[in-house]
Amino acid sequence: MNNLQQQDRLADSRQQAVQQDPALFPIPAPGEKLEEAIKAVDAGVREDIKRELETLSPAEIADLLESTPPHLRVVILELIQKEEEFSHILSQLDPDVRNELLKGMNFHDLASAVHDLDTDDFVDILQQLPEAISDQILTSLDAANRQRLEKVLSYPKDSAGGMMNTDTITVKPHHPLKLISRYLRQHKKVLPNMTDNLIVVSESGKYLGLLPLMSLVISSPKKTAGEVMETRQSAINCLLDEHEVTQIFIRDELISAPVVDEKGQLLGRITVDDAVDVMIEQADQSLSGLLASGSEQDAFAPLPRTVRSRSIWLGINLMTACVAAVVISFFEASISEVVALAVLLPVVASMGGIAGTQTLTLVVRGMALNHIVPANLHWVIGRELLLGILNGLLWSALIGLGVGLLFSNVELGAVAAAAILITLTVAALAGVTLPSLLNRVGIDPALAGSVILTTVTDVTGFLSFLGLATLFFF
Amino acid sequence: MNNLQQQDRLADSRQQAVQQDPALFPIPAPGEKLEEAIKAVDAGVREDIKRELETLSPAEIADLLESTPPHLRVVILELIQKEEEFSHILSQLDPDVRNELLKGMNFHDLASAVHDLDTDDFVDILQQLPEAISDQILTSLDAANRQRLEKVLSYPKDSAGGMMNTDTITVKPHHPLKLISRYLRQHKKVLPNMTDNLIVVSESGKYLGLLPLMSLVISSPKKTAGEVMETRQSAINCLLDEHEVTQIFIRDELISAPVVDEKGQLLGRITVDDAVDVMIEQADQSLSGLLASGSEQDAFAPLPRTVRSRSIWLGINLMTACVAAVVISFFEASISEVVALAVLLPVVASMGGIAGTQTLTLVVRGMALNHIVPANLHWVIGRELLLGILNGLLWSALIGLGVGLLFSNVELGAVAAAAILITLTVAALAGVTLPSLLNRVGIDPALAGSVILTTVTDVTGFLSFLGLATLFFF
Repeated sequence: MNNLQQQDRLADSRQQAVQQDPALFPIPAPGEKLEEAIKAVDAGVREDIKRELETLSPAEIADLLESTPPHLRVVILELIQKEEEFSHILSQLDPDVRNELLKGMNFHDLASAVHDLDTDDFVDILQQLPEAISDQILTSLDAANRQRLEKVLSYPKDSAGGMMNTDTITVKPHHPLKLISRYLRQHKKVLPNMTDNLIVVSESGKYLGLLPLMSLVISSPKKTAGEVMETRQSAINCLLDEHEVTQIFIRDELISAPVVDEKGQLLGRITVDDAVDVMIEQADQSLSGLLASGSEQDAFAPLPRTVRSRSIWLGINLMTACVAAVVISFFEASISEVVALAVLLPVVASMGGIAGTQTLTLVVRGMALNHIVPANLHWVIGRELLLGILNGLLWSALIGLGVGLLFSNVELGAVAAAAILITLTVAALAGVTLPSLLNRVGIDPALAGSVILTTVTDVTGFLSFLGLATLFFF
Repeated sequence: MNNLQQQDRLADSRQQAVQQDPALFPIPAPGEKLEEAIKAVDAGVREDIKRELETLSPAEIADLLESTPPHLRVVILELIQKEEEFSHILSQLDPDVRNELLKGMNFHDLASAVHDLDTDDFVDILQQLPEAISDQILTSLDAANRQRLEKVLSYPKDSAGGMMNTDTITVKPHHPLKLISRYLRQHKKVLPNMTDNLIVVSESGKYLGLLPLMSLVISSPKKTAGEVMETRQSAINCLLDEHEVTQIFIRDELISAPVVDEKGQLLGRITVDDAVDVMIEQADQSLSGLLASGSEQDAFAPLPRTVRSRSIWLGINLMTACVAAVVISFFEASISEVVALAVLLPVVASMGGIAGTQTLTLVVRGMALNHIVPANLHWVIGRELLLGILNGLLWSALIGLGVGLLFSNVELGAVAAAAILITLTVAALAGVTLPSLLNRVGIDPALAGSVILTTVTDVTGFLSFLGLATLFFF
């Protein structure tokens, strides 16, 4: 709750090192400052590292920690002097890196490090600790704080309830603005970050509307909160999925939004930085998922863990590659007669893989942004199928011609052309239908879609090419 | 400039349709409302579409337009009654879709549609119009507005200067807070969105500090802006790259930030929604780039354009697949003797492709987030190379054993194992060094990295497997 106070102190200490006229010292590009600090860590002179750390903000120290191998992270942590800075660094860290660091801490350090965090950051960390330790930390809190945390802990991590902070400042509709201003003046130290509105609630705690700070400046002090409050921004249902919450923030360009339960009781609020965190997480997931890198996000994670996480996708790939190998083995006789078939196999399969992935990417993205919904799926299917056939005709003509000329074999050209047309059409159909099929059986298409798709296109490519060739030649 | 006024009017008209107690009507999930509207558009009854449109905000209508095929987009636009709503819809649209729609409009409609936009949205649109038309629109503006726009137009689109809005409210350090409050009370209609601070500038327009709205509420009205302003947030240099700007917003959890030129003169300000737009664009680019889908983002774009954009990547893939085919053709003699070689080719190549892509993804992501910089690249190279060898040993043992048993051929197993070890090691080395090499020659590794990488791993896999087999068996 006393975040602001601490940030003031931190900022002041940094401020002295900088100068009075900030315009003459525009924010340096994030990379440059970090580069200096990494060089100091790399050189290993503790005094130099300490000096670099003093010029960095908690967020920048978090960046530095994410940019160094684990054995040097411990050294950096030891050199951080101020305890209050520590909890801010923790809240800014990538969860992978944070968990690794928390594992190495004793209970006392842990408890004091997390005490000052925002509710949502605190809950994130608690959920990742062993239950025995998180229970111990909860018990060490005073009753009010514990209740506040348990409220957020009771909602799913990926719901609005799990994202929210409970640090709302509420007023009643009959409060005159004058009274509210006086209250704020007395409590200025505990105002939460990103407070653009106070929240107006009924006597029973029901959400009624928002009182923008600006109204306190521009409205007559005699008016009441109920008279000037804005009621057009609806509250967010606590059970709404975090991705939907993020879309509302982007769509309506919000800074903060109130969260209510099913009955309209105010529970807390979500701020735009939480929505941005969800976006970053989602972008990371689709990137690492589609590229089969697992959930690995720490470029310096310990080797055994990394070998394990990467092995999952390598193992899945080995299985799908074996399926493709089995298909090829059906046609061993044909291949030993016409070796050109083996030469052309990667061409047919990879064209199908690329075309299918193009469709899949477009559809997964469209669904994530809610541009593709059940009501318009038939338009998309029709369009992609047509595109698949058009692309198929174009590339089968080109490849068929090329193969026919290169191998001086018209039949081989015709077989290659037919296989390309079949493969690209099936690829389009698979790319556009797989995401909804996977969603229906509860698999995230952004995660597994591309592996399943390329298996389908590989098998289709090998089967159509080698099958047609066998029919044709033997 | 009179955005707020318009939004008030729009919101009021929607408000009547809803109800007075917003808590009883929590924001519905974005998908549900859209689904209804799409069904109406699909059914094609103009009256129904009109009724649905009246319940939607400009941002939701933009979503609807992105969810319908081009010929129906025109129908929707015709049914939008209010001209002022139109410019807000435009500013929310995906650039691809927006350009398509603008192409079909006449000059008069165009000019009136863009007039009311924020500077940055206006500039975005101007830059995408043919020069003759954008010049005409610029000339139709009054001098003050034209100057405002030309200032932003003079900066690169992907710099802080190109992102900024010029809608700052500035005060001088000697202004008493009382005077500032009175000024705001008089001008409440023209306050720009996301105004969390007023900006304090010197007589010559130099940036001095920020005056949070909260200070106006909680500080003594007799104090001056200079006395209560905050100087710890530095201004952003107008030439800073948009991705660096976004990282500063995320790191420091900003709502808005002032932009200054090299001399510290205030030019404008950037708001968090602009930073979020850059993030979305970047996430889209890395997704579509790595997945070889080009810059295609409109799920309903006209077919000829889509065939063209997709053909670029299919063509590049065909070329790289031909390289792989040529490598295989060197060993035609060996394959016709030992057909099992052809069967195992996709296994060796795909394991290399996956392993290399895992490393590439991690490194590209780490570089984008500034966690991997030149100063710590040697740590990452060492780690990935070690990982490549470890993974190589693990999977070569497994695959070598499997191949030896399945084909009852110890030599074939040994050759497969050696090829896997070589390929996975080369894959790791290529994945970790390619991004910096590509950056040095000015190619975006997120865009072309994966195509180049899989070509390297395919060629390595085929060459090592078939080459070793030929040496061993013949």
